[in-house]
Amino acid sequence: MEINQIGEFGLIELIKKEVFSKDKQVIVNIGDDAAVIKSSPDRLLVFTTDTLVEKVHFDFRYFTFEEVGWKAMAANLSDIAAMGGIPKYALVTIGLPKSVKSGDVLRLYRGMHRIASRYDCKIVGGDTTRVPKDLFVTIALLGEVEKERLVKRSGAKKGDLICVTGDLGESLAGLEYLKKYGRSKLPLVQKHLKPYPRIHEAQTLIRSLKINSMIDISDGLSSELFHLAEESHLGAVIYEEKLPISPQCVKIASLLNLSALSLALSSGEEYELLFTIGKKQLSKLVRIKRRVKAFVIGEIVDPGKGIKIVQRSGKAASLKRTGFVHF
Amino acid sequence: MEINQIGEFGLIELIKKEVFSKDKQVIVNIGDDAAVIKSSPDRLLVFTTDTLVEKVHFDFRYFTFEEVGWKAMAANLSDIAAMGGIPKYALVTIGLPKSVKSGDVLRLYRGMHRIASRYDCKIVGGDTTRVPKDLFVTIALLGEVEKERLVKRSGAKKGDLICVTGDLGESLAGLEYLKKYGRSKLPLVQKHLKPYPRIHEAQTLIRSLKINSMIDISDGLSSELFHLAEESHLGAVIYEEKLPISPQCVKIASLLNLSALSLALSSGEEYELLFTIGKKQLSKLVRIKRRVKAFVIGEIVDPGKGIKIVQRSGKAASLKRTGFVHF
Repeated sequence: MEINQIGEFGLIELIKKEVFSKDKQVIVNIGDDAAVIKSSPDRLLVFTTDTLVEKVHFDFRYFTFEEVGWKAMAANLSDIAAMGGIPKYALVTIGLPKSVKSGDVLRLYRGMHRIASRYDCKIVGGDTTRVPKDLFVTIALLGEVEKERLVKRSGAKKGDLICVTGDLGESLAGLEYLKKYGRSKLPLVQKHLKPYPRIHEAQTLIRSLKINSMIDISDGLSSELFHLAEESHLGAVIYEEKLPISPQCVKIASLLNLSALSLALSSGEEYELLFTIGKKQLSKLVRIKRRVKAFVIGEIVDPGKGIKIVQRSGKAASLKRTGFVHF
Repeated sequence: MEINQIGEFGLIELIKKEVFSKDKQVIVNIGDDAAVIKSSPDRLLVFTTDTLVEKVHFDFRYFTFEEVGWKAMAANLSDIAAMGGIPKYALVTIGLPKSVKSGDVLRLYRGMHRIASRYDCKIVGGDTTRVPKDLFVTIALLGEVEKERLVKRSGAKKGDLICVTGDLGESLAGLEYLKKYGRSKLPLVQKHLKPYPRIHEAQTLIRSLKINSMIDISDGLSSELFHLAEESHLGAVIYEEKLPISPQCVKIASLLNLSALSLALSSGEEYELLFTIGKKQLSKLVRIKRRVKAFVIGEIVDPGKGIKIVQRSGKAASLKRTGFVHF
């Protein structure tokens, strides 16, 4: 069967059936941002991998080698952040076409090292290999999380408030801007090229209040909301008017003749965190607002209610996984 | 600078300078078969990654999807074996061109799972991504080793006997056979398609005698001997007449008009172990010969003596890294 007929997530289900095996040391298996493994009675290992492929995830027309390295590392750091973990050690694999020079490889590593070292994460090894054509970077990242601080995407509870850590739509707006106008110092273009993972924000959140579920926005708000709600066996409703969309994003969307709402729902690679908390935690969230930006955008509801967006008109519409509103 | 001017190992040196940072938890950093990280006072984590790229490391003209998965996993398991480790958890990344069907992906996973589960190693997650053209598989593997059982490539001592765990030249002979005659049930063709990592053999060796240094033969005997000797700051001499080359390999080499010696020196992807022991350990090695095949092929010598092969004629020649004899 063609993969696009069953989809990436259909494929993951098939793979699970093929290779899944129970192991009491494995706390989180295939299907979250990272695998979680028991390493001692109170500490867990968080183990994740993420890849950037030339022409699929980035294009050297807009990206420097350093930015590709930075972004590949940021994507992995973000997965660790979303589990409540602290990144520790990275292995880097680079598939190199012949055209790439040694200085380019060093710049790739420099970008990875710059963002990793902000979080005291070390590159401890890796592999470089030839590829016939398109460059790729795969990073495997090992982190740690204290047992009581682990947050899964499956922990949402009915009545939870749905929150995000930052403005939505920026990364995709930045990409669309890049495609049309080329490189720029605009913050949303920079967010696309050199995103910051929310490691510190996740730690502050976890230490300050009870987070029931969390996921990073790597595939777009809508898609991640589906993951979170489905893994928690619940429904969700979000409100268009509550989505944090910056004036700059609205302006660039208008310049590009795009819908800012569509950008906010479908922008992947935001690396903001989507999380849920019980209503009683709200005052605590307000108390830390100087350290962590957080916006309440909706609520977790009965599974029968599906996954909806309430538009400015007050009318509720079903969300589509792809991020576009299905009216 | 072009990468082929400085070579893969020159590049690794540059990368080390760029990203290396001291960390007292990191026991083995960039430059061995795997990174080694202290996780508790007596246990260490072994962390490695290895990649197979279509048309670089394998060709679907000879390989089934299941074999590609098997071989990618075997290459990683072999790196863990070479450190004295036990493989535990794997993350799998697959770059998929559009032409690949979901059944093919499952077969890839099946191959990985079959060889991993022999060693009780679990696939705990991963990532599938689109690629424009050539398929790749990257696996990151996490294993464990007891502190006193860790074996590095840098531990060889002057006077050590140099040993290998199995016949040499087979994998490359198998590949050359495949290229000329296509698939076959010949053992050396099977060794190329579905190699077995020497996990159990390494464990038996480490538990039975003192192994000073070890490396797996993934780039060819000659190349690995250079790594081992150089990392140990010593020289090495091996003897042509002592190299274990099977009658079948000699026969296939002759059929293909190739030198069996060249195959033995340069065959990558053998996944046999190259290791060194003190002379006093020899009787112990003999005692376990029913459980582990092992052949003494040479000796570790003063660094000033370089890295040499003594030919059948008695004449010593310098070995070349590439595996070919430099007269």
